[in-house]
Amino acid sequence: MAAAARPPLSTPAPEPAITLPGTTSLGHPIFTRVRLATPSDVPLLHKLIHQMAVFENLTHQFSATESSLSSTLFPSTTLQPFHSFTIFILDISLTPFTDTPNHTNPLYNPTEKVVNLDLPIEDPERDTFRVGNSDTFVAGFVLFFPNYPSFLAKPGFFVEDLFVRECYRRKGFGKMLFSAVAMQAVKMGYGRVECGVLDWNANAINFFEEMGAKKLHELRICRLTGEALQAYRGTD
Amino acid sequence: MAAAARPPLSTPAPEPAITLPGTTSLGHPIFTRVRLATPSDVPLLHKLIHQMAVFENLTHQFSATESSLSSTLFPSTTLQPFHSFTIFILDISLTPFTDTPNHTNPLYNPTEKVVNLDLPIEDPERDTFRVGNSDTFVAGFVLFFPNYPSFLAKPGFFVEDLFVRECYRRKGFGKMLFSAVAMQAVKMGYGRVECGVLDWNANAINFFEEMGAKKLHELRICRLTGEALQAYRGTD
Repeated sequence: MAAAARPPLSTPAPEPAITLPGTTSLGHPIFTRVRLATPSDVPLLHKLIHQMAVFENLTHQFSATESSLSSTLFPSTTLQPFHSFTIFILDISLTPFTDTPNHTNPLYNPTEKVVNLDLPIEDPERDTFRVGNSDTFVAGFVLFFPNYPSFLAKPGFFVEDLFVRECYRRKGFGKMLFSAVAMQAVKMGYGRVECGVLDWNANAINFFEEMGAKKLHELRICRLTGEALQAYRGTD
Repeated sequence: MAAAARPPLSTPAPEPAITLPGTTSLGHPIFTRVRLATPSDVPLLHKLIHQMAVFENLTHQFSATESSLSSTLFPSTTLQPFHSFTIFILDISLTPFTDTPNHTNPLYNPTEKVVNLDLPIEDPERDTFRVGNSDTFVAGFVLFFPNYPSFLAKPGFFVEDLFVRECYRRKGFGKMLFSAVAMQAVKMGYGRVECGVLDWNANAINFFEEMGAKKLHELRICRLTGEALQAYRGTD
């Protein structure tokens, strides 16, 4: 439940930068793609969600496993993307994407974009976040699902998680992911996109305000969970 | 997005109380039932949601019509209750419920309960909120839908609206509705029930705390809507 948009807190371990030979004078192009997640992304999603829990100092709430993510995000009864829990993945690559079969879905055409960076990105975890055996790496994700503002009488999207890995922050990638959700909302005639932010995360609040959202000052969330929720087992 | 749990602000218009003859010495029994809403409830739901907007001083956000509620809550492609937007209705009656065909759903057995009140309830709007031609009246509703706490990797429910009509408040009916949601969450193995409250609504916050929920002090909601959302039309 967060947006990790603040600058890196530590310097990445010194490893060779990923660079594209011969492009120094032209900047450093990076190929990006926003696509729907598939069950094969679960192991990487599990790592991303854990990184998010670390960032938010909420590892004590983290109990997700690859198995539980798989069964709830991709159950055997197919949940239709955008009508239930939905994840966009941000892929990056130093070369144009050539793999498509696993990433197409009739409900969403992946969005590709080339970004020219001033400096190459050093990704100390590129082998961990490599997609299969490809030269594609997962840089971030956004998890969202429909909500229902009854005053509007039309659905909206709630952005539960928006996360970009540390070395890819401050390059517009969070905006890409959030924009993809907002564009989908407009396309479907939905009335709102909402997201939760931690009040101490000024960078996240600034980010959403830059994206056009407003912080709701009056609204608070109450949560029933754990033993207090289990107390409702079989009661009336 | 609210829980209207505070006491009535004004005295109801003086109308004859609904009483059950011959029960004075035994108290005033009232038959209650929590059931899934059906498309035929839309006109009453529209009125209830409008009353909620008035209560919250948010009528400027209210644009729901019976038609828009109907098409979004009960679309032609059947949305499965509990896996999408779901509404429990609280029916009340002075006599045992005899109507069932319209209120049964294989996914949820209506929960009936008899409550003994010290005083009869005066319902100044009983004709407005009568269910069909029956002696059943709608006293309130709760609208909820799944959300997804990724750290838990299992769904929860988000309670968007919990509303009990003014003359029925402070009698435990809000608890009935909320408990029905919490029990369903436990039954489905879900990990949380969350709800939004307005920070000035101390009665609502007290209510949820009595139900076992905790107010999250750090969490805020950012909202993208209206023109700011429409700006994402066809952009990238």
